[in-house]
Amino acid sequence: MQSTTTRLVNRQAEMERDEDFEVDWVLLFDFEDLEIHHATDKYHTLIRDIEAFGLEAEVRHGHGTTLLTLIRIPRNKLGNEVYRSRVKDWLFGITHVRPLGDSSTVVDAATPSEEIRSVFHLVTWTKEQGGAGVTANFGQWRHVTASFSPHAWTANKRLLKQLSSKIVLRADDLDQIKALFGEKVSLHDVAFYYAFIQAYSLFLIVPATSGTLFWLFSRPYSITFGIVTCVWSIVFVEWWKRQEIDLSIRWDVKGVGALKVNRVQYAWEKEEIDSITGEARKIFPAHKRAARQLLFLPFAALAGVALSSVLMVTFLAEAIISDVYGEELANFWAVQYLPTILLAVSLPYITEFLTSIALRLSEYENHRTNDEFELAQVQKAFVLNFVTSFLPLILTAYVYVPCGSKLLPNFLPTSLQSRVPVKNFHIDAHRLQEEVISLSLAGQVINFGEEFVLPFLKRHLLEAYRRYKDAQQGKSLHQRMHSEYTKTLLVDAPQEESLLSRLRAEATATPYDVQEDIMEMCVQFGYLAMFGIVYPLMPLGFLINNWIELRGDFFKLISESQRPPPIRSDSIGPCISALEFLTWLGSLSTAALLYMYGGNSDVTDIHLGGLLLTVFIAEQAYLATKLTIRFIFDKIGSEAVRTEEATRRLVRKRYLETFSDEVAGASVRQEAHTYTTLHKRCAPVISDVEDSKEALPVISEVEETVRVRSEYKTERAERFWNQRKEFMGTAEAGVRLIVAIKAFLINVAT
Amino acid sequence: MQSTTTRLVNRQAEMERDEDFEVDWVLLFDFEDLEIHHATDKYHTLIRDIEAFGLEAEVRHGHGTTLLTLIRIPRNKLGNEVYRSRVKDWLFGITHVRPLGDSSTVVDAATPSEEIRSVFHLVTWTKEQGGAGVTANFGQWRHVTASFSPHAWTANKRLLKQLSSKIVLRADDLDQIKALFGEKVSLHDVAFYYAFIQAYSLFLIVPATSGTLFWLFSRPYSITFGIVTCVWSIVFVEWWKRQEIDLSIRWDVKGVGALKVNRVQYAWEKEEIDSITGEARKIFPAHKRAARQLLFLPFAALAGVALSSVLMVTFLAEAIISDVYGEELANFWAVQYLPTILLAVSLPYITEFLTSIALRLSEYENHRTNDEFELAQVQKAFVLNFVTSFLPLILTAYVYVPCGSKLLPNFLPTSLQSRVPVKNFHIDAHRLQEEVISLSLAGQVINFGEEFVLPFLKRHLLEAYRRYKDAQQGKSLHQRMHSEYTKTLLVDAPQEESLLSRLRAEATATPYDVQEDIMEMCVQFGYLAMFGIVYPLMPLGFLINNWIELRGDFFKLISESQRPPPIRSDSIGPCISALEFLTWLGSLSTAALLYMYGGNSDVTDIHLGGLLLTVFIAEQAYLATKLTIRFIFDKIGSEAVRTEEATRRLVRKRYLETFSDEVAGASVRQEAHTYTTLHKRCAPVISDVEDSKEALPVISEVEETVRVRSEYKTERAERFWNQRKEFMGTAEAGVRLIVAIKAFLINVAT
Repeated sequence: MQSTTTRLVNRQAEMERDEDFEVDWVLLFDFEDLEIHHATDKYHTLIRDIEAFGLEAEVRHGHGTTLLTLIRIPRNKLGNEVYRSRVKDWLFGITHVRPLGDSSTVVDAATPSEEIRSVFHLVTWTKEQGGAGVTANFGQWRHVTASFSPHAWTANKRLLKQLSSKIVLRADDLDQIKALFGEKVSLHDVAFYYAFIQAYSLFLIVPATSGTLFWLFSRPYSITFGIVTCVWSIVFVEWWKRQEIDLSIRWDVKGVGALKVNRVQYAWEKEEIDSITGEARKIFPAHKRAARQLLFLPFAALAGVALSSVLMVTFLAEAIISDVYGEELANFWAVQYLPTILLAVSLPYITEFLTSIALRLSEYENHRTNDEFELAQVQKAFVLNFVTSFLPLILTAYVYVPCGSKLLPNFLPTSLQSRVPVKNFHIDAHRLQEEVISLSLAGQVINFGEEFVLPFLKRHLLEAYRRYKDAQQGKSLHQRMHSEYTKTLLVDAPQEESLLSRLRAEATATPYDVQEDIMEMCVQFGYLAMFGIVYPLMPLGFLINNWIELRGDFFKLISESQRPPPIRSDSIGPCISALEFLTWLGSLSTAALLYMYGGNSDVTDIHLGGLLLTVFIAEQAYLATKLTIRFIFDKIGSEAVRTEEATRRLVRKRYLETFSDEVAGASVRQEAHTYTTLHKRCAPVISDVEDSKEALPVISEVEETVRVRSEYKTERAERFWNQRKEFMGTAEAGVRLIVAIKAFLINVAT
Repeated sequence: MQSTTTRLVNRQAEMERDEDFEVDWVLLFDFEDLEIHHATDKYHTLIRDIEAFGLEAEVRHGHGTTLLTLIRIPRNKLGNEVYRSRVKDWLFGITHVRPLGDSSTVVDAATPSEEIRSVFHLVTWTKEQGGAGVTANFGQWRHVTASFSPHAWTANKRLLKQLSSKIVLRADDLDQIKALFGEKVSLHDVAFYYAFIQAYSLFLIVPATSGTLFWLFSRPYSITFGIVTCVWSIVFVEWWKRQEIDLSIRWDVKGVGALKVNRVQYAWEKEEIDSITGEARKIFPAHKRAARQLLFLPFAALAGVALSSVLMVTFLAEAIISDVYGEELANFWAVQYLPTILLAVSLPYITEFLTSIALRLSEYENHRTNDEFELAQVQKAFVLNFVTSFLPLILTAYVYVPCGSKLLPNFLPTSLQSRVPVKNFHIDAHRLQEEVISLSLAGQVINFGEEFVLPFLKRHLLEAYRRYKDAQQGKSLHQRMHSEYTKTLLVDAPQEESLLSRLRAEATATPYDVQEDIMEMCVQFGYLAMFGIVYPLMPLGFLINNWIELRGDFFKLISESQRPPPIRSDSIGPCISALEFLTWLGSLSTAALLYMYGGNSDVTDIHLGGLLLTVFIAEQAYLATKLTIRFIFDKIGSEAVRTEEATRRLVRKRYLETFSDEVAGASVRQEAHTYTTLHKRCAPVISDVEDSKEALPVISEVEETVRVRSEYKTERAERFWNQRKEFMGTAEAGVRLIVAIKAFLINVAT
């Protein structure tokens, strides 16, 4: 026991020491499919570009045929980039107080995510945008297979510990996620995702409790529960839309969408000189893009038809098993559900496959900005998810159960038709409930396995295999004749061992992609809005699932994935429209289900006029409820918006009093700190480091990496970045490594 | 003929000379119901307040017991107010280039409306807001019964002439209206109103031509025409929403809603110190306001019920006349329509009466800002207009025609029941068409009479009567004993005669109110969207009506009304929501009418399920069409928005290059002039005076009043403002006039 604690303490100390090396960014250079002279040429160019831009580079060998290139940004360059980025925020109206200074001002980043965003810009932006122009996996740099910032190991662990000890996350916790990871990951939103899943889960408590009560004490298909679900879903979506604005103000990111840069993948056809700004505008004809976008229609239709056929076959198989062979298989009841279970297991794979095709379609559409690309991709993903997730239930509820007994016998093989007296052939309403449970709830469990358990196992097995191989390779490399210096390059120095093994693991991890997670929540919301009435315990199941999911996702983010670049965002993105669409469809669907299954009459014998009237009334009720709820929310207003407006008003007032920016800005900064309760709450993460000495321990840890940094903060860092350079340049060291590793591989092969 | 021309030339010269007196603002002080010493006290205070604030005042007698108080703003004060107002625009993000200068900078206004807006602020804003605090008809100043800027007579006449010679107004014409009158009148929008009616009329050409074709060549209730109308109305509303944004950019007013000041009528219950700005916030509890707002519901319900009863009685009377006495009255066919005609004539009066009650309700609701007050008032006005305009047609179409033959006989007096064999009692579908024509088209004609002809006659008769009385009064005043100086006060100097007679007429004219006109257009749009299908010639009628209406309204604005203070606005206001609502209801109504009246079956024998299905499908089609049209408009985008964004981008780019406001702003101003075609088009009205020398004659006329003004531009003005002051102060002159007039009146009375 004693030794475990000691080991833990040691481990902790080790992690902290790793961060002392001041590695800002890591590039992974993979030369597996390159000739030796090509590889050395390309590596030379890479290091020359980085060093010419004024960044420090250091090289170590990675797993197999890869080189880890570590990058450090000189403090003045970084501080100036942070300042420029703040000026840009002010120019684009994202922040309202003008940052004082001139073109050479250097400031400290307020949060790790702000710092890393500036690092990200300096490394990846093109030279015209003011960066070194290294874009991984693309064009000239397609052999740079990974480009990431190392995790802030200590802060991560503490944050994970803090989150897992809490039942409900508070705004502070979200602020810390945001401070560490920013609002966005590559295309998708991290902090906003956590805020969303948290808010959604809290909201779920209402239908979960009322659902349980209705399940216990009311008859099935209760109209009251239907109304509760519909109103709840409208309230949630409208509330979230406002909450997003509050959060974007809290995190100072309102309106960051205005800062658009072209995607590097964007291929333009001609350049036009803008008559006002005199800038070259890169044009890709809109009609061509529209034509390419149309391709999605046949694809979606095809997917829909194919899926419908699969479903029909499943239903048929199930009908044959249960209704035809029912008596013979009475002892093996599980066999009856086999087709549905097979369907539930295979649906996520089908979705994944279709989404990957959609991704290629979106790439082909050649969008100019990431926002447009994201919009196109989310729209496609939503359509596909809608088809795979809801089509089975829609077919069951509206076609199979009410009409199946009339339609199905026609499709039965003639050999079987004789076995079933057609008039006896009857599908009961219970069928819908079984289908809903297996697809929505069992689906979540399967998803969890696929999302967490499988990748975890896969990754750890792979990692073990790689270590084993590297150990062999290392031994063999030692035995070969190399210059003394190459040998020291090939062997990790003892003090760097822990750092490098972490970085190697992170370099091979997959980048964190939150889009699937957000889409999963949308689908879950859709199940609840459209079919919650069928099984009132559904929201309870979702609530439990989300509690685990939130923590699982965070564990995955910090332990299993590359650290995402903290791109900013002010919303969870186009999914909001999907949610709104689902509330609308949910109201119609709930009304229809209530009419069809809730009444006393048989579900196979429905009066179409009555059904239509019900749905028509439901739609008007939906529109009226939505307008009312919007009106009420607008009347209530938002404290965050009011505070923001008051702050802006103050700046203006001061300006009109003094006609001077300096006085207006300074006094507002002063008073905002003194007065605003909101800003007080955020102070630990958004204000200057000096103000936050008294903050929570975990936060001061987070800020550790931001502390005003002299050229080298620690002796370890100074040694790490300078020792080797006395003997040779980074490019040369890299070339030696490439040659040594290639030679070994050729040796092994022959 | 010769002499007429001479007279016209003389008149023209006279008008121009009147403008040389440099009267910036006029207040009308009415002391009819004041004791003589109260009147003199109050007038003393008024002049003291004005002069203490640094404005020049001059007094002349008005009609009857009124004094004209003429105000002139010293050039430096005015120029500084214009500058401060521009700085405020920049601070609130309405303009994007920072105006250079400090707290004492003086600039020239770019348009008459900008100048008059600053004059308006200086005279009417409270002392805290930076004005003299003279608010007509309210509190301390409730004896100031009119407060206005004199019309720019010359520019007005030329503009009217220019407009009346054109069939279609171009954007330039609208720019000039905007330059003269601003975007808004008291609460409502002038330039936006003209832009709207112009755009709407142009759009009307589509349904007008297609309607005429359908009327000539197709059978009634054509489905195609129904679809044309519905799609047209959706396209128009969506287009206009975007057009509004374009116009607001063109006129540099985008986002002026942010500049809110409290209404002077706002009565707060407590003051709270804002924790951020330290300003006192005036609070009126929201729940009290909500409770007061609820009062409107019973009022609207009552109005609806009362109106329905009136309608029912009308229908009953008409049914009795035509169906019961039909044969006996066959020779007097007009008698049959008497009830409907009575209804059509009285509806505008009913609407006006209800709106005046609504106005008092809105006042009682105690809104803080003019925007909120306007919203509340327009919402009420829309509900009332909806009830009075559409209820008759809705009742006719959906109740009276289909069910009337079953229902009506029960309401017939028993004495008549015997006369009609119940089964013969039949109302035919033609009834609806007659009702639609009489309410929509005849309604417009009646409206025109009420709006233009009656007020015109009334005003001119009243004016003649006043002149006659003043002449008598003047004669009598002369005969009395007054000091020599009082006598010169009582008699208009020959060179001032023309100016003063104009100002007296303007002071008694009613302020221009455009709200009714906008609402009238909304109602017209509603008729077309909901019942256009009934009578395809309707849009043609509307088109003709609007062509006259636009010119009539402009004539009324410049000849029959006080000049409105040029308050800015960036939209036609909450009417947009009303238009959207009408497109929705129009789609449902058109579908229902097509199903009921368009088929071959009898209208009294309708299948409810079929009707429901039709309306349900129409609603989904409406939603889908709207989304599609929005999507297409968004894809097309707006040139004005793109230009604006490019200009902002340029400012930012320059700023990032130089880190200096001066360079960024100046170069953008430079280049915006050189490059932007949009700005070029606007240049005559929005740019500096120097640039517009080569502009159209009428524009240089408009700018005449803006030309850099030395302390006094003309000798006439200098004499006018200084001559009398050598003898006595303005307050004293006013007191003498009050005493003289009061004494005369007492003399007449006894």
